Amino acid sequence: MIYLDNAATSYPKPESVTNAVLEGIIKYGGNPGRSGHDMSINAAQKVFETREKINAFFGGYGAENVAFTYNCTYALNIAIKGIINEGDHVLVTSIEHNAVLRPLYKLKNKGKISYDIINCKGSDNEILTGFEKAITPKTKAIICTHSSNVFGKVMPIKELGELAKRKGIIFIVDAAGSAGILHINMRDMNINCLCMPGHKSIYGITGIGILLFDGSIKNTIIEGGTGSRSFELAQPSIFPDMLESGTLNMTGICSVSAGIDFILKEGMTNIYEHEYGLIKEAMNDLSGIKNVILYSESLEKNKYTPVLPFNVKTLHSERVAAILCSKGIAVRAGFHCACAAHITYKTESIGAVRISPSVYTEKKDLKSAINCISQIAKSV
Amino acid sequence: MIYLDNAATSYPKPESVTNAVLEGIIKYGGNPGRSGHDMSINAAQKVFETREKINAFFGGYGAENVAFTYNCTYALNIAIKGIINEGDHVLVTSIEHNAVLRPLYKLKNKGKISYDIINCKGSDNEILTGFEKAITPKTKAIICTHSSNVFGKVMPIKELGELAKRKGIIFIVDAAGSAGILHINMRDMNINCLCMPGHKSIYGITGIGILLFDGSIKNTIIEGGTGSRSFELAQPSIFPDMLESGTLNMTGICSVSAGIDFILKEGMTNIYEHEYGLIKEAMNDLSGIKNVILYSESLEKNKYTPVLPFNVKTLHSERVAAILCSKGIAVRAGFHCACAAHITYKTESIGAVRISPSVYTEKKDLKSAINCISQIAKSV
Repeated sequence: MIYLDNAATSYPKPESVTNAVLEGIIKYGGNPGRSGHDMSINAAQKVFETREKINAFFGGYGAENVAFTYNCTYALNIAIKGIINEGDHVLVTSIEHNAVLRPLYKLKNKGKISYDIINCKGSDNEILTGFEKAITPKTKAIICTHSSNVFGKVMPIKELGELAKRKGIIFIVDAAGSAGILHINMRDMNINCLCMPGHKSIYGITGIGILLFDGSIKNTIIEGGTGSRSFELAQPSIFPDMLESGTLNMTGICSVSAGIDFILKEGMTNIYEHEYGLIKEAMNDLSGIKNVILYSESLEKNKYTPVLPFNVKTLHSERVAAILCSKGIAVRAGFHCACAAHITYKTESIGAVRISPSVYTEKKDLKSAINCISQIAKSV
Repeated sequence: MIYLDNAATSYPKPESVTNAVLEGIIKYGGNPGRSGHDMSINAAQKVFETREKINAFFGGYGAENVAFTYNCTYALNIAIKGIINEGDHVLVTSIEHNAVLRPLYKLKNKGKISYDIINCKGSDNEILTGFEKAITPKTKAIICTHSSNVFGKVMPIKELGELAKRKGIIFIVDAAGSAGILHINMRDMNINCLCMPGHKSIYGITGIGILLFDGSIKNTIIEGGTGSRSFELAQPSIFPDMLESGTLNMTGICSVSAGIDFILKEGMTNIYEHEYGLIKEAMNDLSGIKNVILYSESLEKNKYTPVLPFNVKTLHSERVAAILCSKGIAVRAGFHCACAAHITYKTESIGAVRISPSVYTEKKDLKSAINCISQIAKSV
């Protein structure tokens, strides 16, 4: 099978990641931060080293300000609900994932908050103006995906961070599609909270998300044992304990640690250039095929993440993906948990097929996919 | 190192569990429930089979009523906050873990709910009477640990389930210390929600918890992409999607599946008998040593889980554990995230040392520990 669904989860994982998982089971088999014996302390040390590594990689606010979560959705929920209070107003982009929209919709539906969606299909300047104009005295936060998980468009994060800072607004970024592939520095970009999965472009396994944060998070949605201050019934307010209840995912943390080492070794820019090159060429090939519809507005370097969304005339995207699957090519179709993005790109009726490569994808893999798409396009 | 800290996390894992984790990375490397290609569908099928296996093992309410969480604490938070509403009253035992007490304390502190703690140091009848007497017309739920994580005492779950049913109260059970070692059947025991970690007596890896539930859970604390109904901004109300947002922990699920197979192969009763025998003998040995304080009220079979809590005179439990560690013996000391239990057993000042074996623990491991404890006891 030619795997072109890396934006859902990267496959295969680097050998070093698989080895790190085994190490997590065997070498770091103690419960980190619970007991005081060597194996537990070694595990806790590995966790702390990984926090330090992640903090350095993303220019965060310190190793204690890196929390491990179940996945990116949990990281976003913990950040959003830890910051937004009753009566607050929030601004989001029109390409947000349901991991952002569903929590906000629930709070709005209960009459607790309000939010506005800013159209993000224009230029960076238009987007920035849209956000600035929509800010009210009640606006507490801008929540923004770094890139569209379906259409690859990259948001002007640095400029939005400056705007948020200038207006005294908290800036939460969903880096599900960009962490590990695009440069992110929280301090330089004035990002207060940064959320990401471990299992996509960081090349870790599933079941681990990462939340980097400053002091903005005041409330918790999960409380429980933290291995600290056991005699206090109140959730500890120290970081990261406040945001990490129950036993941590040790193998997941080991996998993320190895994943970041892998990216550093390969070079994040090299990985991006490789995938960018593949997508640009494939996009060019597809643009010459009748009945194939492409969506990306701009292919400017660093202004889109290497995903290739397309459709074949009016065929439902799921149908196209099923044909590709029957030919041994794995892609994702449908709505990708991102209804707003589909409304923005007018693909509400048939969704979109998404090709997403990884560092391991070769040119011939994409050529095979294009040949197959070409045949489908001819048949409609 | 002699590892006697299996109640924190079991170690080592069965070889079949480690292999299952590798299979989770390689064979089931697609994102389950997201894309429609073979690797994604195979992963989804593996997830469903594991739900079925867990449901059968615990006599649950159907495979769809098995949700995977980050850990047991998350399962408890999702259950508690999904059921308890403003104005409700809750009853808990005096040996609850902070995974139950901290969420409740937070809700109480905000003036949203009230709760009473029932003293659980007496006979089953006294405990049952305590609960029955404390029920008020506002009592929505009884939340009860199946066994004390520190002192091993097993609660009369079946009788409490009957009481809850008779009174129309929801019954939530924390099986952190019992799942995989004591018989549990949700339907027979009238349990509405059952929460457990994958990484203790189920022999899976860390980062995976399990929540079995009936229809009682009405609210969510986490919302996001579920791979289903992407075009609805409201969190889907279908199970298990409602309680599972974001990508699932595939390796964790594979590990739990293999862990349950391992238990079925070894025989849960055999595992219990093995550990029970070890603890009973060790308890007997320790009872003859001056300065050693033991806590277990009753060693009646199936009335305690195989953990051995003790102290050496007035030495702080952490000090005893540190000496044991220096001799190559790994145990847990301190307060074990269970302040209420320490108040109940009057160990608030020095905590307790806890020895906890697994299926792999041998008699000679406990003999080594006892020799070492004996030396410590002589020196005070």
